[in-house]
Amino acid sequence: MRGRFQKQVEKKVAEYTASILFDRRLYRQDIAGSIAHAKMLAKQAIISDKEAELIVMGLSSIREEIEQGSFELSAELEDIHMNIEARLIEKVGEVGRKLHTARSRNDQIALDMRLFAKEAISDTIEKLIELQKALLDLAEANKDEIMPGYTHLQRAQPVLFAHHLLAYFEMLRRDVERFHDCLGRTDVLPLGSGALAGVPYPIDRAFLAKELGFSKTSQNSMDAVSDRDFVIEYQAAASLAMMHLSRLAEEIVLWSSAEFDFIELSDAYATGSSIMPQKKNPDVAELARGKTGRVYGNLLAILTTMKALPLSYNRDMQEDKECFFDTIDTLISTLEVFTGMVATMRVRGEKTRQAAEEGYILATDLADYLVRKGVPFREAHNIVGRLVQYAIEKGKSFKELNISEYESLSPLFGEDVYSITVESSIEARNAPGGTAPERVKEALEKARKSLNE
Amino acid sequence: MRGRFQKQVEKKVAEYTASILFDRRLYRQDIAGSIAHAKMLAKQAIISDKEAELIVMGLSSIREEIEQGSFELSAELEDIHMNIEARLIEKVGEVGRKLHTARSRNDQIALDMRLFAKEAISDTIEKLIELQKALLDLAEANKDEIMPGYTHLQRAQPVLFAHHLLAYFEMLRRDVERFHDCLGRTDVLPLGSGALAGVPYPIDRAFLAKELGFSKTSQNSMDAVSDRDFVIEYQAAASLAMMHLSRLAEEIVLWSSAEFDFIELSDAYATGSSIMPQKKNPDVAELARGKTGRVYGNLLAILTTMKALPLSYNRDMQEDKECFFDTIDTLISTLEVFTGMVATMRVRGEKTRQAAEEGYILATDLADYLVRKGVPFREAHNIVGRLVQYAIEKGKSFKELNISEYESLSPLFGEDVYSITVESSIEARNAPGGTAPERVKEALEKARKSLNE
Amino acid sequence: MRGRFQKQVEKKVAEYTASILFDRRLYRQDIAGSIAHAKMLAKQAIISDKEAELIVMGLSSIREEIEQGSFELSAELEDIHMNIEARLIEKVGEVGRKLHTARSRNDQIALDMRLFAKEAISDTIEKLIELQKALLDLAEANKDEIMPGYTHLQRAQPVLFAHHLLAYFEMLRRDVERFHDCLGRTDVLPLGSGALAGVPYPIDRAFLAKELGFSKTSQNSMDAVSDRDFVIEYQAAASLAMMHLSRLAEEIVLWSSAEFDFIELSDAYATGSSIMPQKKNPDVAELARGKTGRVYGNLLAILTTMKALPLSYNRDMQEDKECFFDTIDTLISTLEVFTGMVATMRVRGEKTRQAAEEGYILATDLADYLVRKGVPFREAHNIVGRLVQYAIEKGKSFKELNISEYESLSPLFGEDVYSITVESSIEARNAPGGTAPERVKEALEKARKSLNE
Amino acid sequence: MRGRFQKQVEKKVAEYTASILFDRRLYRQDIAGSIAHAKMLAKQAIISDKEAELIVMGLSSIREEIEQGSFELSAELEDIHMNIEARLIEKVGEVGRKLHTARSRNDQIALDMRLFAKEAISDTIEKLIELQKALLDLAEANKDEIMPGYTHLQRAQPVLFAHHLLAYFEMLRRDVERFHDCLGRTDVLPLGSGALAGVPYPIDRAFLAKELGFSKTSQNSMDAVSDRDFVIEYQAAASLAMMHLSRLAEEIVLWSSAEFDFIELSDAYATGSSIMPQKKNPDVAELARGKTGRVYGNLLAILTTMKALPLSYNRDMQEDKECFFDTIDTLISTLEVFTGMVATMRVRGEKTRQAAEEGYILATDLADYLVRKGVPFREAHNIVGRLVQYAIEKGKSFKELNISEYESLSPLFGEDVYSITVESSIEARNAPGGTAPERVKEALEKARKSLNE
Repeated sequence: MRGRFQKQVEKKVAEYTASILFDRRLYRQDIAGSIAHAKMLAKQAIISDKEAELIVMGLSSIREEIEQGSFELSAELEDIHMNIEARLIEKVGEVGRKLHTARSRNDQIALDMRLFAKEAISDTIEKLIELQKALLDLAEANKDEIMPGYTHLQRAQPVLFAHHLLAYFEMLRRDVERFHDCLGRTDVLPLGSGALAGVPYPIDRAFLAKELGFSKTSQNSMDAVSDRDFVIEYQAAASLAMMHLSRLAEEIVLWSSAEFDFIELSDAYATGSSIMPQKKNPDVAELARGKTGRVYGNLLAILTTMKALPLSYNRDMQEDKECFFDTIDTLISTLEVFTGMVATMRVRGEKTRQAAEEGYILATDLADYLVRKGVPFREAHNIVGRLVQYAIEKGKSFKELNISEYESLSPLFGEDVYSITVESSIEARNAPGGTAPERVKEALEKARKSLNE
Repeated sequence: MRGRFQKQVEKKVAEYTASILFDRRLYRQDIAGSIAHAKMLAKQAIISDKEAELIVMGLSSIREEIEQGSFELSAELEDIHMNIEARLIEKVGEVGRKLHTARSRNDQIALDMRLFAKEAISDTIEKLIELQKALLDLAEANKDEIMPGYTHLQRAQPVLFAHHLLAYFEMLRRDVERFHDCLGRTDVLPLGSGALAGVPYPIDRAFLAKELGFSKTSQNSMDAVSDRDFVIEYQAAASLAMMHLSRLAEEIVLWSSAEFDFIELSDAYATGSSIMPQKKNPDVAELARGKTGRVYGNLLAILTTMKALPLSYNRDMQEDKECFFDTIDTLISTLEVFTGMVATMRVRGEKTRQAAEEGYILATDLADYLVRKGVPFREAHNIVGRLVQYAIEKGKSFKELNISEYESLSPLFGEDVYSITVESSIEARNAPGGTAPERVKEALEKARKSLNE
Repeated sequence: MRGRFQKQVEKKVAEYTASILFDRRLYRQDIAGSIAHAKMLAKQAIISDKEAELIVMGLSSIREEIEQGSFELSAELEDIHMNIEARLIEKVGEVGRKLHTARSRNDQIALDMRLFAKEAISDTIEKLIELQKALLDLAEANKDEIMPGYTHLQRAQPVLFAHHLLAYFEMLRRDVERFHDCLGRTDVLPLGSGALAGVPYPIDRAFLAKELGFSKTSQNSMDAVSDRDFVIEYQAAASLAMMHLSRLAEEIVLWSSAEFDFIELSDAYATGSSIMPQKKNPDVAELARGKTGRVYGNLLAILTTMKALPLSYNRDMQEDKECFFDTIDTLISTLEVFTGMVATMRVRGEKTRQAAEEGYILATDLADYLVRKGVPFREAHNIVGRLVQYAIEKGKSFKELNISEYESLSPLFGEDVYSITVESSIEARNAPGGTAPERVKEALEKARKSLNE
Repeated sequence: MRGRFQKQVEKKVAEYTASILFDRRLYRQDIAGSIAHAKMLAKQAIISDKEAELIVMGLSSIREEIEQGSFELSAELEDIHMNIEARLIEKVGEVGRKLHTARSRNDQIALDMRLFAKEAISDTIEKLIELQKALLDLAEANKDEIMPGYTHLQRAQPVLFAHHLLAYFEMLRRDVERFHDCLGRTDVLPLGSGALAGVPYPIDRAFLAKELGFSKTSQNSMDAVSDRDFVIEYQAAASLAMMHLSRLAEEIVLWSSAEFDFIELSDAYATGSSIMPQKKNPDVAELARGKTGRVYGNLLAILTTMKALPLSYNRDMQEDKECFFDTIDTLISTLEVFTGMVATMRVRGEKTRQAAEEGYILATDLADYLVRKGVPFREAHNIVGRLVQYAIEKGKSFKELNISEYESLSPLFGEDVYSITVESSIEARNAPGGTAPERVKEALEKARKSLNE
């Protein structure tokens, strides 16, 4: 490609611009694309069947060489495409020089990236579903456990532990949906766009799409080689997923603390300290929480890179790969370790229940009690607010207040106020979506069914 | 709400935590939600029909007051919900205190935000389509103009100007799709989730959904009050859209420069300088390019805010609004000014064509010429590379080289090499997606048809 | 400025490009700059003394009009500079048209922004120091309180509460330093750079610098009008400061939870719930934590905006203001409310101490005990690790283990093992920087002294 | 460290949490720290001189093993610290188990990172200065070349090419300053802070600081192990530096285009196309511009990771390394290739000058001409605005307008208007900081002098 150049590139420049250290990861996609391309060229009589056969054979054996580690990729050849082409020519001779007919590295790399992304999305969805399963299993196994529901990290109202877990199930369900949508927009064949303007050969793009498993072909050659939306969309969906995982991670860290003590992680999912022998640290959750930063950073990196680039291909776009690979690896490995961590976690139901019993967590129920006796909600809320203040001053729990103390704040309080319990509170919230056992049972069944589909 | 508190909040704290300065923008949504809620409470006999009627009347008149500017929202009342509730109680008396039965600000704000987001998404889609139209009109009006296609901002191969513009049409098409997908996930009623655990009243969520135009209801109350995915998803889709617009903006700035001189902006879409009288600046394009930063920043802001929040509602989430509103306003106004700018832009076809004629832009066509004479592409590429180097040294264009100069590099060159022109180059690229006039004509028709649907 | 234009700008364009809604905030700086400029023009005989006097008088009275709200800034006049110039001409006539001699809006806005930034930095430093004071007061008032020190949110080793607070003192000290450094780089007069190339008048920049309180003048006119480093550097320093505050916020949220119960916020710094009457929420801390996102977002916004802009001024740079103002306001208000929140916070020493007594927090001390008896640290660590495991199995604390149980793990354990207490652990850590009371006393004194300087 | 654990960690967890793949890069720092630590322990009689000697010898030989590639670091041993400690025990026996006395991995990693950062900062400063030199050399070599100065990418006023380049010199000067400030805050010894609370041994931190070349020691042990400000500050300074480089990159891309044609890159700093034989692409500049995204992303990653972490060390903080290393490598390699690219770039002075001659670039000079004849600037600006409009309509340049055409717009125009040239325009701008040759000469000398210091 340096036909018109009189000097070799500076060594530092070659290193700076080389992508082989990371795009080598695309070798399978690159070879698959080239094989389909060669077959199509033959089918369209742009090269002969014999030539195509040689090329396909050569490419297949290069794939084997790479997989067996016997073919060393060279930084001097800049990228995965040139490495493979050069090796092909070594192996099959002059005919190898025909492979690059009717295509360019611009549509070739767009193809490789889309093939890679499609697999990555499918893998991601699979791992998301596995974590959903683990959450559902844990919820079912602890479906009667009661815990305090929190707002502002203050105990707010009692809920079922399973209800709490199912909130994460919902988040992951949306993640799965988003990756599905992203898959649809990734599933577009760019090959046949040439460098930017299309190709002056009678190619068959429908054949290529079929060979390579794409359901659509790109409509505009300049867009096809300039577009990295699918990479960004994956990164955005991954950022949302990591945000969800960071919330679960935060809760696992809190629940593992001595202060909460709601769960115990399996020893296989915790680590120790180099100097404090007693420590059992929720490192996996912490690290996942920390890795959220990396995934957000990768999203912003590619958005920044693509900002204000004129059409069509610019070398800036080579920067699409490393941060994409890193996000995929981070998300998938985080999902895997979370699945194991959740599956092996022990819930201390006695502790979560005890926490739900303490304090004035039933205050809303007292207000709703007054509402049912005809007090407007806002007034009921005020009465119970004063009741809480009174109880704090007296150092008493609701149960410990006597009936005349109740009555002093509202004559509508009767003996039945003592029947308000953590259980009755939970049972009462049986509107759809609520934490009542009946609702949660339905939700668990629905969730299980959705996973089986 | 300060029943249990003994002190008023500090003035600085009230200011710091108040949201009324920005959530006032949700007044229509908040009132619509409250009206539906009151009707539902009556329908379910939680309040009487009479009470509901009074509340609905009161709320309607508050909406009018706000719209006529006669009701002053107060920072002391913290947020839009409390402002409206307080005014309602002023207007309809005690019965107003019943409105907050069976709901919480947590599900109320989730509702308001989703109602607002649904409208914003629809508006965004409409504006995207209008810009698509303007691009398509411009492409059709200049469908025969030829320009250099660029890679690396180097002239690469000649293309039709319309083909170049259609690349942006494709980008915007994907944006429309993404916002549609986001709309589907936004279209979920959260009301009925209470503070976090559901509500202990026999509410009818299906009725609420119908009244408020939602096609789905949320499945888990804790998720419903903790979830801002729809805000983030809008921000991510908006970041992609702004990235696309920043690319078009960059090109408009380039094309408006003296060096390119490809287009002239309407005076109505350009501004002058305070000291340089000759200046005609493409400020709209520059500012749009600059605003990309703001939209990316807003995306990062909400992602950061939501990171590692334990369930369920936390006050951090109040930060979901300003950056959301700002992104919506930025994207929609940018789309509007772009639509006008594109619609009034004049393309200097003689200049774009002249640029396409210069230099060695037909080098790929020479290589393809040799390929058709049997030279493997990679070798053809090398031959033409040396030809370019020779021509540069001699200071000649391809046309100015005589046939023996051609032949000195390859005996396969014949007189027909002189028939390779910008036109023949463009016509040759007629594989689907390519820049050949026939393909572009089809693409224009298809685009027009898609807009008419 | 539209001398060469034949059309007015489109209304939507005027709105889109107008900056008056936010740059009005720079009116004091803009007028101060113009007054100094007019004086300099007179001093250099570029305008007459009489003219300068009129201009200065006019500008002063415009400042008053703005402050009294009697001068309405108009969006039609685009920005603060043109609004003031137009009003000046209205007030003092033709002479007002001379003010813009030897300057451009490009160096004018750079001046306004630097004057504004210098004040903002000084304010920020002052507020940082006030929060340092509040932290120090709280530390001194609770200097004997013991709490568990945490790593991984697991109780690790006992520390003094004051020691913990002083960690934040250190963070804020670095913040102060960073803003000081930023101030030095902001304190550079750009005026006199003209539009980009300098000015063709015999101006006196040293005089301008002196009048406006700058200690340096810019060295290169193109850099001077293109440079927004000082804005970005403020944003970066603010992001670090907010990160520190978000950590303190997280701890305040944790400590306010029922599970930790280490502190009680003043009622004046907490808020209630619309439906849960018992709630006392640490909203200020939560909101501050949430606002970290906004400040990070603003940093990314301006970095993105400035990316890849060719020299010199581009309209993109108008986007430097809103996100800068927002960050300043956010950081300063957060520092203010934190200062009050910290000053009025009550530490529950009995609770923090009790938490420090529980569990196996003295395990490291046991290992260090063995080290002092000659066991290599790594081995001592292993022995105590097994001891912890044994104690957990037996359900005993270290104190409850009898001496033979100790000896079964190492014969080096003796009766003196029981003298290891939370107090002895803290006292032992008296290397410089450690939590020993003596060290913390020194640190408190040093901190106090540094604030008094 | 798993004394209290009953299960091995899951393989996937070990992989997920292992840092050895990237923290191996800290081996030199880790060993240097351990050697200093061992010497200090001996000096303070915490271990014997003999023991220290053995440890130091062992550590030195491990360093050699690593450098010769004969010691394989193992992922099972999690991190660089444990790998080296384990190898040490293998080599020197039991005494190796004493090395970890009076320290923790928490202060150890903080030490390693600070040692590494100090070197990285020094390297970065050196590379910044080398690029400054290359820019200065290029400016001096082309010190008489004239080019159009741009605002809004519109030709605005003529400037010297050297003046333009010196704007970048100034940017890099600020970068150097910022890294210097960062170095000051990095140069703080954290060792001796233990896990979080300090250490219960009579250590000598001043000795450690001296041995390891630190000028300060940390003041608070909890801050010392929780603080990554120095990493973030480097990332922020690097983001600013990359922003500057992205601007220069953008200009190099523009100037290399056929449309500008202001420079020619050396063949050694440009690359070709796989299908377009004529292409000479400014890939280095493009890639650098693209890598800006990566560096911004890394900054946001670490800011996000550190957000809202409670004290003291949390495992999230392990995420400080990869993005830090990546930013260092990216910035340093970008500076290196830019230095070479600038040094070998050829300026086409005839082209830049021709561009400066075209159009109405002298319009400001005409306005200033009228000002000198007594017209208020704002009016002069309007007159020349109309003159430009008139000239465009007539299709004439300023030079081609005859004197009566000038006079028809203002009677103050005289024959001397024809003496306004690109040269006179540049010479006129000789206020300090301006583009006049005299000023630029001074600036070049000053710049040279500053580099020699």
